[in-house]
Amino acid sequence: MKIAFQGEIGAYSEEAVAGLYPLAEIVPQISFESAFDAVSSGKLDRAVLPIENSLFGSVHQNYDLLSEHDLNIVAEIQLRIRHQLLATEGSQLSDIRTVYSHPQAIGQCRTYLREHLPNAEIIPAYDTAGAAKLVSQNGSSASAAIASRAAATEYSLVTLAEDIESNHANFTRFLSLARPDDEPEEGLSEESISTGNPKTSLLYAQRENVPGGLFKSLAVFALRDIDLYKIESRPLVGSPGKYIFYLDLEGHQEDERVKNALHHLKEVAASVKVLGSYRSGRILG
Amino acid sequence: MKIAFQGEIGAYSEEAVAGLYPLAEIVPQISFESAFDAVSSGKLDRAVLPIENSLFGSVHQNYDLLSEHDLNIVAEIQLRIRHQLLATEGSQLSDIRTVYSHPQAIGQCRTYLREHLPNAEIIPAYDTAGAAKLVSQNGSSASAAIASRAAATEYSLVTLAEDIESNHANFTRFLSLARPDDEPEEGLSEESISTGNPKTSLLYAQRENVPGGLFKSLAVFALRDIDLYKIESRPLVGSPGKYIFYLDLEGHQEDERVKNALHHLKEVAASVKVLGSYRSGRILG
Repeated sequence: MKIAFQGEIGAYSEEAVAGLYPLAEIVPQISFESAFDAVSSGKLDRAVLPIENSLFGSVHQNYDLLSEHDLNIVAEIQLRIRHQLLATEGSQLSDIRTVYSHPQAIGQCRTYLREHLPNAEIIPAYDTAGAAKLVSQNGSSASAAIASRAAATEYSLVTLAEDIESNHANFTRFLSLARPDDEPEEGLSEESISTGNPKTSLLYAQRENVPGGLFKSLAVFALRDIDLYKIESRPLVGSPGKYIFYLDLEGHQEDERVKNALHHLKEVAASVKVLGSYRSGRILG
Repeated sequence: MKIAFQGEIGAYSEEAVAGLYPLAEIVPQISFESAFDAVSSGKLDRAVLPIENSLFGSVHQNYDLLSEHDLNIVAEIQLRIRHQLLATEGSQLSDIRTVYSHPQAIGQCRTYLREHLPNAEIIPAYDTAGAAKLVSQNGSSASAAIASRAAATEYSLVTLAEDIESNHANFTRFLSLARPDDEPEEGLSEESISTGNPKTSLLYAQRENVPGGLFKSLAVFALRDIDLYKIESRPLVGSPGKYIFYLDLEGHQEDERVKNALHHLKEVAASVKVLGSYRSGRILG
């Protein structure tokens, strides 16, 4: 199998792909859009892309691309983002004078840096994998990068300190997307297949000018005792009162209860798009 | 007045501050946290911070900081993110060989770059204001940056092309935060004060193991015909079934209807925190 992901080799998303598809070939893509296109066109088998982060919210761009493309969600995984302090072989913490990383990663490791490397110069890089590559290429034992474990492997760096982020509740949820005619569980790791109950993700738009429209659309699930795992309204800026909703709910779209609820939702909503039914993913890392 | 914002001078958020508080002194902060601290401690008067972007979702970190600090939302503004191609005085589009910017901005301008600068080398920078600074400092007429209008002014660059982003529906919503004892509308631009109906933002946590808990908590508003402008569930990863909700609703917290609804919500929710009542913000840019 060939899997599209967005970013460079050594990026955090590569860890998510390896967690879901340990035996697959990983093919980096320059953008989320090109990852969607590679799977839609049949060139690659799956796209594994971030859909939300516990600190930074939903990736609306991937919801938009899901809405425009005809791909199904077939699996998910939650990746804990763990930042590592990486340096060249033989280097020690006391040697480090310069630390390279993405500003977001630097921010998340500020407490560690202040305590352990108060005099190091901090140099922002445009991504964590690029910072690791730089340290590997310049070869100085006085340089370190904050990056993923995958970056350590890719660029043959050693780990001077593990999990140096202040907030350990930093998770990114990734979805695996396939063409609708494809076998959903092909290539997935055993662990990914065996965990979790089925859930269903969908997008819908409210009918305009229906008072209490949101409440009515949620009633179709409450009336059938179907639990919701996620609800998010997304306003259309400049069009007051117009929204799209993201919903994750308990159960498979082929379950009788869910089928009936979706039928009922179509009565009260302007449009409904089911994005896929898949097992709740495990937490990695 | 002194306003805290996160980022460098010339960043997009500086435009939001200037839109809300045209006469204020703007004080850059290294992190969202230090912006909160500067206002909480009384050192600065307001913090103007991003809370959601139409492409990238809610900034959960700022919701967390709102939940931890005792600051009130007193105003909002929606800033359209417009990317400009900036270069040194006298430079022309045909001179440009190198373009610097943040990878996200580069991605959003890919169509323009492909059509107008197909042979330029694209070099990622860690932020857009930094890219503009670099072009200004190296002074070569062959270099350009993709950055904000504020960056053009700050670094004395000229605009070679305006609004070169492919998707014009790119908006960031900023909130202005003040200490609870402060006068909410002090220093706000006339335009900001005069637009919009009052709305109220709040956070709440559902009671555990209450079937249909979300539906019940929304009923307190539907029963009183109070419209919701935003609803978002945020799962506690690793604690299945535990959520926090973000809600924006129609009306001021001192309105009788809203007061009653909030009273009712406290009956059915585990915890409720009202973040402030303020006028819906205008769209800038």
